[in-house]
Amino acid sequence: MSGTTVGQVIHCKAAIAWEAGKPLVIEEVEVAPPQAMEVRLKILFTSLCHTDVYFWEAKGQTPLFPRIFGHEAGGIVESVGEGVTDLKPGDHVLPVFTGECKECSHCKSEESNMCDLLRINTDRGVMLNDGQSRFSIRGKPIYHFVGTSTFSEYTVVHVGCVAKINPEAPLDKVCVLSCGISTGLGATLNVAKPKKGSSVAIFGLGAVGLAAAEGARIAGASRIIGVDLNPKRFLEAKKFGVTEFVNPKDYEKPVQEVIAEMTDGGVDRSVECTGSINAMVSAFECVHDGWGVAVLVGVPSKDDAFKTHPMNVLNERTLKGTFFGNYKPRSDLPSVVEKYMTRELELEKFITHEVPFSEINKAFEYMLKGESIRCVIRMDA
Amino acid sequence: MSGTTVGQVIHCKAAIAWEAGKPLVIEEVEVAPPQAMEVRLKILFTSLCHTDVYFWEAKGQTPLFPRIFGHEAGGIVESVGEGVTDLKPGDHVLPVFTGECKECSHCKSEESNMCDLLRINTDRGVMLNDGQSRFSIRGKPIYHFVGTSTFSEYTVVHVGCVAKINPEAPLDKVCVLSCGISTGLGATLNVAKPKKGSSVAIFGLGAVGLAAAEGARIAGASRIIGVDLNPKRFLEAKKFGVTEFVNPKDYEKPVQEVIAEMTDGGVDRSVECTGSINAMVSAFECVHDGWGVAVLVGVPSKDDAFKTHPMNVLNERTLKGTFFGNYKPRSDLPSVVEKYMTRELELEKFITHEVPFSEINKAFEYMLKGESIRCVIRMDA
Repeated sequence: MSGTTVGQVIHCKAAIAWEAGKPLVIEEVEVAPPQAMEVRLKILFTSLCHTDVYFWEAKGQTPLFPRIFGHEAGGIVESVGEGVTDLKPGDHVLPVFTGECKECSHCKSEESNMCDLLRINTDRGVMLNDGQSRFSIRGKPIYHFVGTSTFSEYTVVHVGCVAKINPEAPLDKVCVLSCGISTGLGATLNVAKPKKGSSVAIFGLGAVGLAAAEGARIAGASRIIGVDLNPKRFLEAKKFGVTEFVNPKDYEKPVQEVIAEMTDGGVDRSVECTGSINAMVSAFECVHDGWGVAVLVGVPSKDDAFKTHPMNVLNERTLKGTFFGNYKPRSDLPSVVEKYMTRELELEKFITHEVPFSEINKAFEYMLKGESIRCVIRMDA
Repeated sequence: MSGTTVGQVIHCKAAIAWEAGKPLVIEEVEVAPPQAMEVRLKILFTSLCHTDVYFWEAKGQTPLFPRIFGHEAGGIVESVGEGVTDLKPGDHVLPVFTGECKECSHCKSEESNMCDLLRINTDRGVMLNDGQSRFSIRGKPIYHFVGTSTFSEYTVVHVGCVAKINPEAPLDKVCVLSCGISTGLGATLNVAKPKKGSSVAIFGLGAVGLAAAEGARIAGASRIIGVDLNPKRFLEAKKFGVTEFVNPKDYEKPVQEVIAEMTDGGVDRSVECTGSINAMVSAFECVHDGWGVAVLVGVPSKDDAFKTHPMNVLNERTLKGTFFGNYKPRSDLPSVVEKYMTRELELEKFITHEVPFSEINKAFEYMLKGESIRCVIRMDA
């Protein structure tokens, strides 16, 4: 098919969010060819992440509609724009909501993945090259979402936001590595870095927290303490290596004190995946003095301050934040895919639901009811 | 002399603090022999540190007097108690206010130096072994200070608080490595770890801050930004490698914004040596997102909370605290002495004053007036 579509507008199906919080509508959309440093992708599988739901609900936000959501996906390059040398039609790829230009000070730093040019921007609904959308319906532009808009059979993405992966990797599984799973996994493996035999507390047992637990399991942690307000989550969490469960509601004392008592002074590492300010403080204060490291992953929705007594820091604790698990999208994601290919990383257990594209709104329902970890959407069905 | 004193009470001179804030009085004191796991040291040189002054002033504290202060010193082992195998009479040593038992989880951790058994305890005025003091005047006990009490010609110290050093090292210089200088130096070299060519901000240009700057100079930092409210300190600070000076009083905007503008988004590393809560927050917020590391050294005197917006953490900044520069006293101090012996570390510039023991109160005056960085006290004069 690519031979006939290169340089042409493609007409295909996309799930349009016309208004905040209203069911998506599958319609025919026009997808313009990729411009300089852009690639057009055929999306085969996409999955739903909380961030899609958050911006689709658009509560307390400046709404940007009509918009095509979706940012966890696997696909194949259909065509490439001017200047693109790293990718060619037929390559198997994961589009990513944040990018790697390979030129800025962040991309050149070994420590950062917060690219100056392509860092996530949830307010921008257009492409960088010309400030326009590549999507339209009968000439009316439809906004992009975080540069990926994978709820469409075809989409246009900046080359810096595309990771080329092993073509043997099953896209219906590895598509979940585009965002949440890599975020939690990398928070543990790249930032918290627990040693074999150590103890790790995970705050929040949603998809990101379970991926953080999976990271702790892979690292060989001997105690993985899951913290969540919902006791139903413990049974599922066991599959991800969680060995103990603490529900803060079961105690009158702060959960950091409960954990310190369970662990002779504190855990070696903690990973905070809820975005609640209280959980952030607890996650920091529950690590052991002398060597404890707390990693913040969850993004706060409110304008709260992180507060702790400075002695908690001075007693040789470390507080670190991470974004997308400190993975550089293009440089590092291929190796995460390999971790799945070698069976070190288990992805199947994250995928609790699958729906055809025509039933994409069901994926929203599963997530809103808290029933799914990840629901994979098949674009060809 | 040791042949005649081993196992005997030694009568010698010590500077006694009879009351909070009153000049020390040099008197004859009895020093009991070392008990199990203790050593008795002949102190040759001692220097004065802010911590001595702070507990001598005893403002807002439960006072513990009469007491023998002093914790930065160099000396020679006179005799050892039962079970001491690591040290023998004649060894050159630095006593340290915090210890290393080599048995607890902290001592066994590569990352911590906060020994469970011998961690600094400013409230305890007696030895661990029997809960008694080794000092007395006419039978009346005189309290110890942080297990060292070096303002005495002889003192008794737990073996875990004694670093055996190169006997070639001049004790009148390396005595300052017992506390403040190692604290600042290690904060930079062991914890902040700036790379060659990087930028480092140092908050507070007292002895500890200047030692942190010296660490940045040794590490090859190309920009060392000194932050202090006292503009007189900049001239001296240049000797320690400080290249630029920022006085927060000269700006209306927060100093973290001033530094971010000077450095295209923030410094690579910062080290906070004042203990002021505002400086702690500024030190954290002035490091670059993506890779910046802020290290807290200064101990707060007030019960303030460290407060920052969680996004400052989530944008991949790191906040770490350190205690005694993360040096394990027995394992690591000998190598710091070697850094001086190889001229990598310059100590002479820290020693601005010298006084004979008989004039020890002058050392307090120099410090209270802010005239000295370190004043070394010669015990034999």
